[in-house]
Amino acid sequence: MSEEIKMQFGKTVEKWGVFEVCCEGISEGNPFTERQIRGIFRGEHECVCADGFYDGNGIYKVRFMPSFEGTYSFEIEGNYDQGLCQADENEKKQGSFEVTAPSENNHGPVRVANTFHFAYEDGRPYYSIGTTCYVWDLQSDERIAETLDSLKNSAFNKIRFCVFPKHYDYNLGEPRSYPYEGTPMDSGVLTKENFNDYTFKTEGNHFDYTRFNPAHFAHVEWCISRLMELGIEADLIMMHPYDRWGFCTMTKEQDDLYWNYAVARFSAFRNVWWSFANEYDLFPTKTFEDWERYASIVCEKDPYHHLRGIHNCRPFYDHNRPWITHCSIQRQDIYKTSELVNEWRERYKKPVVLDEIAYEGNIQHGWGNISPEEMTRRFWECACRGGYPGHGETYMNEDDVLWWSHGGKLHGESWKRFELLHRIMCETPGLGLEPWRNCGWDEVAAVPEKEFMQPVKSYYLFYYSFMRPSFRDYYFDDTTEYEVNVIDTWEMTIEKRGTFKGHFRIELPGKSYMAVQVKKR
Amino acid sequence: MSEEIKMQFGKTVEKWGVFEVCCEGISEGNPFTERQIRGIFRGEHECVCADGFYDGNGIYKVRFMPSFEGTYSFEIEGNYDQGLCQADENEKKQGSFEVTAPSENNHGPVRVANTFHFAYEDGRPYYSIGTTCYVWDLQSDERIAETLDSLKNSAFNKIRFCVFPKHYDYNLGEPRSYPYEGTPMDSGVLTKENFNDYTFKTEGNHFDYTRFNPAHFAHVEWCISRLMELGIEADLIMMHPYDRWGFCTMTKEQDDLYWNYAVARFSAFRNVWWSFANEYDLFPTKTFEDWERYASIVCEKDPYHHLRGIHNCRPFYDHNRPWITHCSIQRQDIYKTSELVNEWRERYKKPVVLDEIAYEGNIQHGWGNISPEEMTRRFWECACRGGYPGHGETYMNEDDVLWWSHGGKLHGESWKRFELLHRIMCETPGLGLEPWRNCGWDEVAAVPEKEFMQPVKSYYLFYYSFMRPSFRDYYFDDTTEYEVNVIDTWEMTIEKRGTFKGHFRIELPGKSYMAVQVKKR
Repeated sequence: MSEEIKMQFGKTVEKWGVFEVCCEGISEGNPFTERQIRGIFRGEHECVCADGFYDGNGIYKVRFMPSFEGTYSFEIEGNYDQGLCQADENEKKQGSFEVTAPSENNHGPVRVANTFHFAYEDGRPYYSIGTTCYVWDLQSDERIAETLDSLKNSAFNKIRFCVFPKHYDYNLGEPRSYPYEGTPMDSGVLTKENFNDYTFKTEGNHFDYTRFNPAHFAHVEWCISRLMELGIEADLIMMHPYDRWGFCTMTKEQDDLYWNYAVARFSAFRNVWWSFANEYDLFPTKTFEDWERYASIVCEKDPYHHLRGIHNCRPFYDHNRPWITHCSIQRQDIYKTSELVNEWRERYKKPVVLDEIAYEGNIQHGWGNISPEEMTRRFWECACRGGYPGHGETYMNEDDVLWWSHGGKLHGESWKRFELLHRIMCETPGLGLEPWRNCGWDEVAAVPEKEFMQPVKSYYLFYYSFMRPSFRDYYFDDTTEYEVNVIDTWEMTIEKRGTFKGHFRIELPGKSYMAVQVKKR
Repeated sequence: MSEEIKMQFGKTVEKWGVFEVCCEGISEGNPFTERQIRGIFRGEHECVCADGFYDGNGIYKVRFMPSFEGTYSFEIEGNYDQGLCQADENEKKQGSFEVTAPSENNHGPVRVANTFHFAYEDGRPYYSIGTTCYVWDLQSDERIAETLDSLKNSAFNKIRFCVFPKHYDYNLGEPRSYPYEGTPMDSGVLTKENFNDYTFKTEGNHFDYTRFNPAHFAHVEWCISRLMELGIEADLIMMHPYDRWGFCTMTKEQDDLYWNYAVARFSAFRNVWWSFANEYDLFPTKTFEDWERYASIVCEKDPYHHLRGIHNCRPFYDHNRPWITHCSIQRQDIYKTSELVNEWRERYKKPVVLDEIAYEGNIQHGWGNISPEEMTRRFWECACRGGYPGHGETYMNEDDVLWWSHGGKLHGESWKRFELLHRIMCETPGLGLEPWRNCGWDEVAAVPEKEFMQPVKSYYLFYYSFMRPSFRDYYFDDTTEYEVNVIDTWEMTIEKRGTFKGHFRIELPGKSYMAVQVKKR
């Protein structure tokens, strides 16, 4: 494991890479609760104080993600060695290192670039095309390799997944490891019929919620790193209510210990996003104050200010809370979700990420059986309203391996269409699309976000959703020349129609799912 | 013309048939404004006073629709003959006639049977499956015959259409006749590009809005009669704003003259519904007071209390007004309309008729280019929420003959699916469906309307809309045996699955548009 993470103590590290310091320390007692370690990292342009963590076997680690090139120095402190560093003091307690230029595909962490949109820290726009595989990271090596291969061949640049294992319909198996020391209940008693009787129950489990299993976290980090290599953001679901092990009903102190530990471990990975919860409103005991306390831990302890969101089942968390960087939304309505992006943009003045707009598939649950056409429609509809859509797949199969939960192979049809959408999103002048207020009542149309407004009337993207016009008439002004492309979002074709000005008509095939791209010449 | 309408003076007439008295009278001056005629019709169970009307060429007529069998007498009065009846007084000024039993397909006028649903006056449930052909009645004889043939071979049992001609995109031709004496503007100047410049303009027209063209009305009556023979309700759109002739901008006095004339002519046809307007909110000059005044005329002068509704473009008319018998609704939202039936039922406590939920087709306008799948979905979704859906077709073609406006042939695919829906609606125990409050969040389910509740747990109709479950689990109670049918609403198949009780699972094909019918054995 460890050699696969870029731990570059005493060497160079690239900008936005992970620099890691390992120290030997005390392993007696409970190092997780009794010991602290932290590092102070100083470069010409920043000074970062980062908590470290106990990684088991007497080893403590401190990680750091530099945001600038040049020479850095560091110091390590804490009671992890009772004041006696077990290693050579010059090498381990303090040191210096060089930060080199980022490698080609390293653009830094994703930030809210301005109000509604994202960009990497180097300024490159980030147009999010997400998917969800809740516990792909906790499957077998073979399945994980398969998932990474699927992701590599897709347009996905964000994936939501969990740190804790998942107990839910189609997800009754044991995870590859547990986040805590201990033993789980006997899952042999579980059936598709009775599994819900065990949700939120802790009987039969023997976990010590004050002693982490470092190998579990190291494995999650390995997954984060593989995603990083693929240019995919790791939207870490830190807590979720699909639980039979007691992980979602720990005490406040145990929760806080977890958040501190996870933040110390994960923050230095540039592609991490903090998804505080999946369906925060389904936890049996957690209160608003709990979520706000976790937020205060993350805001204080994550030196890099990774993106922070919290996902709902029914009512939204108040996305106006200042710690929330973007709206992470599960649909509120069976029929409309992407269509509400305009409203949510207005209400929250933050990027709107539709992390769950139902999944393509055919399982019995209404959240998991929309068609690929409808999923693709929701993606375009969301994107053309200035939001960011998310995918998932829930196709029944003999092995009960569903992408939505386990990863593996993609069986659907919608994912194939997202590369085209992403390509079109990336053609937006400036950064990001906003809904065009002057469009027809019967069309969705986007223009470049006004914050980044190119010369006006530079670019329009029309989307006709399920409607099937045989033609549409356009008029912007009398003199500007526009190039017009007709996009079949389902068939994945782009037809160049030539140059137009003044009043002009574009013939369309009278099919659903057509888009028209209008670019100033 | 006239011999084709059942005018049965001096003969027998069937219950809910049209009994008509013709009298010669004064033709000098303006008989429409200066002369009155009315009849008083007496039977054992009713006494009806009905206004008559001038039919041109010195002929006045009074019509009556008897609601009971048996012997009736009548008297005719008014100043139509200046007190001197031109015909034999015994025969024409008074008389008697026999009302016989209704013929096989005559069930009387449609009424609001109880709160949310309709039934014919003889008690037979009326499950409305509507369509719209705005001016099919004003096309050529050949086109009208074609329309009637199309209707005959369809499940439609209501059609919305206009008394006035229509000036609108795809509708720039001359009607076969005008409702008033006079001459229209030269329509040769109209193009698809400029037609809107002529909307609401009256220049070039020379109509006398105080002198009706009786032949125009007689032709509309001929159409109403043909529909009656086919068992189709004639939902007469009395006013609409798609006008270049001045018919939608007449004075209050002219409007009132029109309403009185139309009510006198049309009321005796049992299949007439009064649709006060199409898109009442698009008229340039009419006020709430105007619509209320028309309503008072109809309520006073229509002795048979035909159904009354008023259709919106954007805001609803206040369907709580006591004169409104049912909500006539155009969709409020591009995405959701049928889905809002529950809400509208609650709000108005009247039958909810979705007269316009967009049209199947491929024209440029968003209201006229949904797919047949989506139209069929909206029909089922509406019906399973306890409402009544309406269809229309707007397919482009070389001759610009669009069903929605001209009638003619049906070119779409959705209409073929409505016979199945109607058959299933007719299987409802009691009268009418209501949304089942205990259904899953991800299904639409209907039970028999509580007003007519059969023994509880007698009947359920589930609809899965665009969702594609591969199975669903059901439980009603431990003992009742249910027969289960799986309906593919698109493929038009019904599969009997046998008898079930207690907890049971129904396998489904993982396709959209499936319904499950559950009937107590």
